[in-house]
Amino acid sequence: MSPARCAPRIWPSRTPAVPARRNDPAAAGPPLGEFGRIERFFKPLAAGFPGARGLADDAAVFGVPAGKELVVTTDAMVAGVHFLPDDHPADIAAKLLRTNLSDLAAMAAEPLAYTLVTALPRGLGEEWLAAFAAGLAADQERFGIALAGGDSVGTSGPITLSVTAFGLVPAGRAVPRWGGRAGDCLFVTGTIGDATLGLDIALGRRVVEDVAVRESLLARLRRPDPRTTLGPRLAGLATAMLDVSDGLVADLGHLCAESGLSAVVEAAKVPLSPAARALAGGDSAVLARLLTGGDDYELLFSAPAGARPALQDLALRTGVPVTGIGRLEAGEAGAVTVLDAGGAPLALPRRGWEHF
Amino acid sequence: MSPARCAPRIWPSRTPAVPARRNDPAAAGPPLGEFGRIERFFKPLAAGFPGARGLADDAAVFGVPAGKELVVTTDAMVAGVHFLPDDHPADIAAKLLRTNLSDLAAMAAEPLAYTLVTALPRGLGEEWLAAFAAGLAADQERFGIALAGGDSVGTSGPITLSVTAFGLVPAGRAVPRWGGRAGDCLFVTGTIGDATLGLDIALGRRVVEDVAVRESLLARLRRPDPRTTLGPRLAGLATAMLDVSDGLVADLGHLCAESGLSAVVEAAKVPLSPAARALAGGDSAVLARLLTGGDDYELLFSAPAGARPALQDLALRTGVPVTGIGRLEAGEAGAVTVLDAGGAPLALPRRGWEHF
Repeated sequence: MSPARCAPRIWPSRTPAVPARRNDPAAAGPPLGEFGRIERFFKPLAAGFPGARGLADDAAVFGVPAGKELVVTTDAMVAGVHFLPDDHPADIAAKLLRTNLSDLAAMAAEPLAYTLVTALPRGLGEEWLAAFAAGLAADQERFGIALAGGDSVGTSGPITLSVTAFGLVPAGRAVPRWGGRAGDCLFVTGTIGDATLGLDIALGRRVVEDVAVRESLLARLRRPDPRTTLGPRLAGLATAMLDVSDGLVADLGHLCAESGLSAVVEAAKVPLSPAARALAGGDSAVLARLLTGGDDYELLFSAPAGARPALQDLALRTGVPVTGIGRLEAGEAGAVTVLDAGGAPLALPRRGWEHF
Repeated sequence: MSPARCAPRIWPSRTPAVPARRNDPAAAGPPLGEFGRIERFFKPLAAGFPGARGLADDAAVFGVPAGKELVVTTDAMVAGVHFLPDDHPADIAAKLLRTNLSDLAAMAAEPLAYTLVTALPRGLGEEWLAAFAAGLAADQERFGIALAGGDSVGTSGPITLSVTAFGLVPAGRAVPRWGGRAGDCLFVTGTIGDATLGLDIALGRRVVEDVAVRESLLARLRRPDPRTTLGPRLAGLATAMLDVSDGLVADLGHLCAESGLSAVVEAAKVPLSPAARALAGGDSAVLARLLTGGDDYELLFSAPAGARPALQDLALRTGVPVTGIGRLEAGEAGAVTVLDAGGAPLALPRRGWEHF
């Protein structure tokens, strides 16, 4: 599927403005202690979900509707590893929640609720927690999800956060990583590589003079846009799916390995934002970095060629660009070949980001 | 309910032997990386739970049977805060899983599965992880639970672990903290204060010459015994319930606060192990410490006096001692009075353990 045949390209697509930094004046005064913090910052986040039992019980309790299955995913983030220590707490909250929502979308699940574990340095002020909670509240409203429970502990180490997110999918309709078939086309949502450029900017490795471009790339790093609207609609269309977190090539390798297939990607078809295209400027080393940098949180999926009209319709209706980038083939399981514009294999120094 | 009327006292009750320390020879060789660690240590733990999808997908997927509700709880532990850095990894695994199972029991839920987040220092060897995984495997078999998913990240800080545990309860039958009624009797399972003494021993604050006594108290600290068999059977009998983690008095305060009532406890009725009774030796300051020390992971619940015969029967059938210790009363919500043997209020320097 070429971009022209597939869907209008919307850029920047739903990228939210970074909210004004906010200090909660109510957070002044003596330290609250664990129960005070739960009362002030977390109970309001659970108000919309009866199963949270007001965070006043030992556990959350909720049912799963007949004909549905529960989808459960967990992602953790550590300061200095997954975010920068001076990132705004609301951005950290958004990234934490959205990386989990992206996993739900990659299973074709609708978001339901989440639990939160915070391990915070004792010296971290309540202003930080107030801004973090405000970020969660904003995203709860945006994505229709609520806090179901959690735990708060102190740590002598860096800020460590994890979310376990719950979603619902019609029984038997979750899209696995392993359903790809030889001959299926490969599709990706949105654009690839912007978060890698955003990280370069955040680390001072790259200077981008244009404020709007710089901010849009930083936003892609800090506030990924999980495809929660499109993902559930891909049940029955996508044969295999995951979200791109470690890098397009690495994650495609996972999809291929689980499907027992190999893949060929045409680099020229991989959707880049205008900013990424301008910054790459035809440099194949930069392009290779964008395809392996990760943190994209776009959906990568396989589907038969016959699904193209339905995908085009879905892309139009959801406003999420969907682009064909290659195909699955019989061959060495997990092998990914990226071809440059001339049809030669692109040199990739690495496939993606390893966590240890 | 006096101990004599209630159930035979079994001591040490189901306290497991500390397993031999085991180094996995397969853990030698070059570092495995994140995917290698998942493959070797975590995938085997998920083999018994189809919903884990072999840890090969973006999320776990499972149904909840008709007529049941899902119960979800999360507990986190940080080295140096919730366990001692040189504790055996299998003990850490047991405590992590069991504190969560205790929360499920306190809701009257049967254990189903769990997700695990590990944030581990990069220098921590694979022998540690092998022993930790072996501890999880042993407890999975013991409690009939399996790994459903998780995340593994690196950290520059201390070992940080969290579990989100899932249980099932008949719809509408989860026992809340807030259902207590004035006049209800208060009951507690097992014995109180042993983990506090175990912590004293572990920290070198107390010397206990008798090896069997010392080991049994340390085991109560390191390997709590969640009441997973009794807990689900208390649905319909207990009006309010929680598990004792912060300290008997503090947690009873929570039950009272949520129920809008006060409580009176007779200190002489609080069940102590022979070891704790000998070490307390009638010293009311030591007794006060045992009642406020925490880490007991016993069930504390209220029930009408008419439930005594049913409770006695359950205690006999499950082998879990159940002891009446006091009653709920109308009065200041959350107030707890502990009376000594002479009927005078016992001085309590604190109610329990605050996490920050």
